[in-house]
Amino acid sequence: MSAARAAAGAQAPEEERRFLSAVEAAALERELLEDYRFARPQLAELCGQASAVAVTKVWPLPALSRKQRTVLVVCGPEHNGAVGLACARHLRVFEYEPSVFYPTRSPEPLHRDLTTQCEKMDIPFLSYLPAEVRLINDAYGLAVDAVLGPCVQPAAMGAPCARALATLKLLSIPVVSLDIPSGWDPETGAAEDGLRPDVLVSLAAPKRCARGFSGRHHFVAGRFVPDDVRRKFALRLPRYAGTECVAPLSPQ
Amino acid sequence: MSAARAAAGAQAPEEERRFLSAVEAAALERELLEDYRFARPQLAELCGQASAVAVTKVWPLPALSRKQRTVLVVCGPEHNGAVGLACARHLRVFEYEPSVFYPTRSPEPLHRDLTTQCEKMDIPFLSYLPAEVRLINDAYGLAVDAVLGPCVQPAAMGAPCARALATLKLLSIPVVSLDIPSGWDPETGAAEDGLRPDVLVSLAAPKRCARGFSGRHHFVAGRFVPDDVRRKFALRLPRYAGTECVAPLSPQ
Repeated sequence: MSAARAAAGAQAPEEERRFLSAVEAAALERELLEDYRFARPQLAELCGQASAVAVTKVWPLPALSRKQRTVLVVCGPEHNGAVGLACARHLRVFEYEPSVFYPTRSPEPLHRDLTTQCEKMDIPFLSYLPAEVRLINDAYGLAVDAVLGPCVQPAAMGAPCARALATLKLLSIPVVSLDIPSGWDPETGAAEDGLRPDVLVSLAAPKRCARGFSGRHHFVAGRFVPDDVRRKFALRLPRYAGTECVAPLSPQ
Repeated sequence: MSAARAAAGAQAPEEERRFLSAVEAAALERELLEDYRFARPQLAELCGQASAVAVTKVWPLPALSRKQRTVLVVCGPEHNGAVGLACARHLRVFEYEPSVFYPTRSPEPLHRDLTTQCEKMDIPFLSYLPAEVRLINDAYGLAVDAVLGPCVQPAAMGAPCARALATLKLLSIPVVSLDIPSGWDPETGAAEDGLRPDVLVSLAAPKRCARGFSGRHHFVAGRFVPDDVRRKFALRLPRYAGTECVAPLSPQ
């Protein structure tokens, strides 16, 4: 891990150091999975729960109309999608009304189990996304983008996820992106026509592309990251209050 | 599951229905694991986190002296012990100072991984419990009892856990029991010389023995239990506020 340590280096300017390069993000994940023996289901659970809590911070349930409580959660087949599935379940537990669109199902036991949990909790799974965006804007209060994380190349995403992402870009309801806005380069950020989410929930720690985030609310959901790992990657993050699993970051 | 449904039956008096018999507790666990496909690591994580949150409710960090922040977490080799290990890690994350005594280590990957996480986070593991109880009372602010859950017969507990339990009974610092006070019969409760914890955190739902709990604070940590399962087992539980993972129950 000395390369990561060097990459997180002490020469980087203050604000640079709070954002992970793609290499650092991968190294941090490896550290959690291999050295600390965090299990993927454990991380998906903690990140999904924290993502749902972030939604409640921006849109507290008592302030919402019935329609505003409905959340469309769009899940990809990789780890980001697993976090989305866990997020949908926690939103249901918090008495929101999530629906899931999960067009490319992963054969992984983690994804299968999280899907079963959602289905058995009567969370609707959409078999297709309406082509007409107005129908989605009318039906849902907000959307959660759990299509692509930082470790998946947008080019590798299948056609159903690409279509879902194209739809997400057109929505007028607020969009909450998990970890990175889907389709963004984890380092350089959005293409000209990229997704522009209103809320970004950085998982574990913000990736470099988050510097280009111009939405209303940026949270970090990484309370589970051990102190030693924070130090190693020079994560100068705000303190989490009390037992909170998310902390607000000021927009850059 | 029709036996469980009948056992939870409508004839039981109001207060009876909030507490699960041993058969119902086992049926509820089966339902979560087999029907809903919750993974044990997922449940251990959610229950451990909620148990740590319960500790913070009774002893909020800012009100504690340095010594009062130290927590001795005593873990058995079964699922209760896994919850204890997760609880210790979350307490560390909440800036308490846990130490773990885990005399009989489970070979399960779940236990091994949770142990690694604690060890790598510099949570001390005691190699023995001092025979002199005063030394423990002097060193720690409170103790967490994660020795035995409701599905393990006290007679089946090995000698190291039996000795640890005997020590827990003698402590004058507060004791927090996870799920049931170790050594209690899950239905009939404490023997004459049984453990008398100050705080009880019922996991998923209170077991029948909780009616005999006379400590100061009783919490239920079962926000993750799906609505349908709550209805099936007639769990008349208090509502969880906001995004809280624990809810206080009034002592019986």
